[in-house]
Amino acid sequence: MTTTSWNHKDLLGIQDLTVDEINCLLDTATAFKQVGERAVKKVPSLRGKTMVNLFIEPSTRTRTSFELAAKRLSADVINITTSASSIVKGETLKDTALNLQALNTDIIVIRHSAAGAPHFLSRLLKASVINAGDGAHEHPTQALLDAFTIREKKGHIAGLNVTILGDILYSRVARSNIWLLTKLGAHVTLAGPSTLVPRVFEEFGCRVTHDIDEAIRDADVINLLRIQHERQRMTMFPSIGEYAAMFGLNKERFARTKPDAMIMHPGPINRGIEIDSEIADCGRSVILEQVTNGLAVRMAVLFLCAGGKHSPEGAE
Amino acid sequence: MTTTSWNHKDLLGIQDLTVDEINCLLDTATAFKQVGERAVKKVPSLRGKTMVNLFIEPSTRTRTSFELAAKRLSADVINITTSASSIVKGETLKDTALNLQALNTDIIVIRHSAAGAPHFLSRLLKASVINAGDGAHEHPTQALLDAFTIREKKGHIAGLNVTILGDILYSRVARSNIWLLTKLGAHVTLAGPSTLVPRVFEEFGCRVTHDIDEAIRDADVINLLRIQHERQRMTMFPSIGEYAAMFGLNKERFARTKPDAMIMHPGPINRGIEIDSEIADCGRSVILEQVTNGLAVRMAVLFLCAGGKHSPEGAE
Amino acid sequence: MTTTSWNHKDLLGIQDLTVDEINCLLDTATAFKQVGERAVKKVPSLRGKTMVNLFIEPSTRTRTSFELAAKRLSADVINITTSASSIVKGETLKDTALNLQALNTDIIVIRHSAAGAPHFLSRLLKASVINAGDGAHEHPTQALLDAFTIREKKGHIAGLNVTILGDILYSRVARSNIWLLTKLGAHVTLAGPSTLVPRVFEEFGCRVTHDIDEAIRDADVINLLRIQHERQRMTMFPSIGEYAAMFGLNKERFARTKPDAMIMHPGPINRGIEIDSEIADCGRSVILEQVTNGLAVRMAVLFLCAGGKHSPEGAE
Repeated sequence: MTTTSWNHKDLLGIQDLTVDEINCLLDTATAFKQVGERAVKKVPSLRGKTMVNLFIEPSTRTRTSFELAAKRLSADVINITTSASSIVKGETLKDTALNLQALNTDIIVIRHSAAGAPHFLSRLLKASVINAGDGAHEHPTQALLDAFTIREKKGHIAGLNVTILGDILYSRVARSNIWLLTKLGAHVTLAGPSTLVPRVFEEFGCRVTHDIDEAIRDADVINLLRIQHERQRMTMFPSIGEYAAMFGLNKERFARTKPDAMIMHPGPINRGIEIDSEIADCGRSVILEQVTNGLAVRMAVLFLCAGGKHSPEGAE
Repeated sequence: MTTTSWNHKDLLGIQDLTVDEINCLLDTATAFKQVGERAVKKVPSLRGKTMVNLFIEPSTRTRTSFELAAKRLSADVINITTSASSIVKGETLKDTALNLQALNTDIIVIRHSAAGAPHFLSRLLKASVINAGDGAHEHPTQALLDAFTIREKKGHIAGLNVTILGDILYSRVARSNIWLLTKLGAHVTLAGPSTLVPRVFEEFGCRVTHDIDEAIRDADVINLLRIQHERQRMTMFPSIGEYAAMFGLNKERFARTKPDAMIMHPGPINRGIEIDSEIADCGRSVILEQVTNGLAVRMAVLFLCAGGKHSPEGAE
Repeated sequence: MTTTSWNHKDLLGIQDLTVDEINCLLDTATAFKQVGERAVKKVPSLRGKTMVNLFIEPSTRTRTSFELAAKRLSADVINITTSASSIVKGETLKDTALNLQALNTDIIVIRHSAAGAPHFLSRLLKASVINAGDGAHEHPTQALLDAFTIREKKGHIAGLNVTILGDILYSRVARSNIWLLTKLGAHVTLAGPSTLVPRVFEEFGCRVTHDIDEAIRDADVINLLRIQHERQRMTMFPSIGEYAAMFGLNKERFARTKPDAMIMHPGPINRGIEIDSEIADCGRSVILEQVTNGLAVRMAVLFLCAGGKHSPEGAE
């Protein structure tokens, strides 16, 4: 494993990364994935370093994945979530971050409802800043774990037809995926209701369609985004039932996909809405492998950004 | 210490355990109890393993006890509690659990308001599932720590008269205790208001009485359950004051117990309701020792279920 | 480093400490400060010991600082905060503490809204009790980190003019600072609205003034307390704007301070209220260094109270 092509203290987004850097990160994640399969799932790479999970927007899954990634690298972890945070006392984000750095924190993983919050911190801090989701802007580790999963299963990414289905407009997962996949040479199709998949996304180098059957017909990979029905915007589509009928991946539609089309979803899944239960659990679904790979990718991100000098124990 | 008679990946309840398995577990806990008395209260048994505390129902005491047990075995611990959990996003328990397992989690400790939730998970998962309380069904580690305490103090369990007093009907602690104590040959008496201690419990092999004086007269052990007065069911008994007067262990009643009758309570205690303050703090109360033993028992459970191959350092 | 002059299992307040003990603690903190500057910010001093952060009153900053301090000493940490605590079930503080001790807890760090809560626990428990703020009474680690910062920057404390500005009446930070600074020979001036800075504080050996210009003119150190505007007491001062105009440290006032007057604040700061943004960020502000020093001071407190026998690795 070589880390010579990685030269950032932060991971703010996919937009900033070169193809070489992305490949370096995915290669490092491959080495770390083996760590999760051992009896002792721990390496000393970040021993004596401190990571803060600063989640101004709640998230159990991403927080847990980063927390475990850090602990498997032997780092110390502090969790700070909104409700507990001194942010309720009116302190600015800048002051919160400077205070965390004053505690000799090495890494700050931040999730924030405002796009650009991690970029703002990265300019202020010597500590590594990792974007764990900023507004509707980027969610780079999700895109990296998606790419890792595609590469692992399909052997390559360039030339593949990848269809992303659902709420593209408000999704940071979609944005980061689009940037990453097009950089790596995939053909990206976006599909869903016209209210959620505007034509302007063609400017990102994607094909945009509102005909789901056309969108999935030639797809090698189908990535279903989560419908945020708990905060459903009535103006975007009429009802959950109607969304499921019009855009959900049900058995009829699934039967018309390519026989080796791979099914992805960032989770948590809404069974019976954007995806039928049987399809989520079928052999062509890699949804749980995405979770496993997310941990490996996050270990790689923490390791590369926090200046680990040593390669993971036993991994090369 | 031999662990040859333990052959489960999970601890779901007392009902499933043989007498040999129970004794194996209690013997292992005896070895681990010594660890808590050392200057360095830590053994490497579960180093590199991950335990998730999945508490869908809140509990500081049981969560803390499991967390410390895991940390003293050198495992990494992730806490997930209801309010923070993605369960609020509508994910099913099945998906939450499969996701945790996809993170290479070795042990999932679950508390859930639905009886059977841990059993459901145990069939789904390769990870060890530990029941930390499921509805009004079972709370096996509480029963095991109670048995451990009785055995340690009285030298044996078979033949003892054990009286359990209070809300039997809705109590998982009562059920697990009844199963465990009758398996080990104790004579179990249940007492309390007839609304909370129905005659049907005689089918479990217990004596049922609504006369507290009769219930405690010959008892070697008196286990007082907590009256959940914060969610008092008005139809079950008239008032807290009346409960205390009719069924609370006060000085007059205590004076009529056997001179070596031992007082137990799973905590948190309601001083002045089910037990007078002086009795809770007297020399015959083992309430705090139950807490200490709970840690040892939980270390043993995690160690045996998560496939520890090595005996605890320095303990045999 | 000698720890011969430290002989307490607890840190309850500054009032109880001798000058020798304070100096012992500050010297130990100096040694630990170096640990935070290393690549591996961890020493094995408290390995196998357990610290509980028992925060009955919420606080992200102080909780985080203690948590990191303990982790850098290799202790295991359990966080218990109000909302999660069994205190909601009506358990008394005494029972909560006895239960924590029954888990072989070595250190209990407590924040509580009631003055005297840590003192009450210290009499009950064999475990070390550290006061992390009790009502309006004491916040000893804050005063110690303030003294550490002054000593480090100014070389000494005796003879210095230290002005504390703001809500003195309700502030535990003010009380602990007054006791510590006067013990070490500083001249302490208290200033602010007469409603918040009553003359009775002269009995503590301080000068009291309500003329801010007089208060800051000869100050070597200016310590600004936080205006708790989220719970502003209308009877104490008319409005936030008026407070800022009358007592805030703005550019005009700052220009009239001594050229080497040092600016302190316990945080979180209210930019534009008790302090102008530019002054908070200027070269004479040591606000972030206070945070860094707080970690070193808390490591020293935990190390000395929890009976560490070994000096910090590599520190003498």
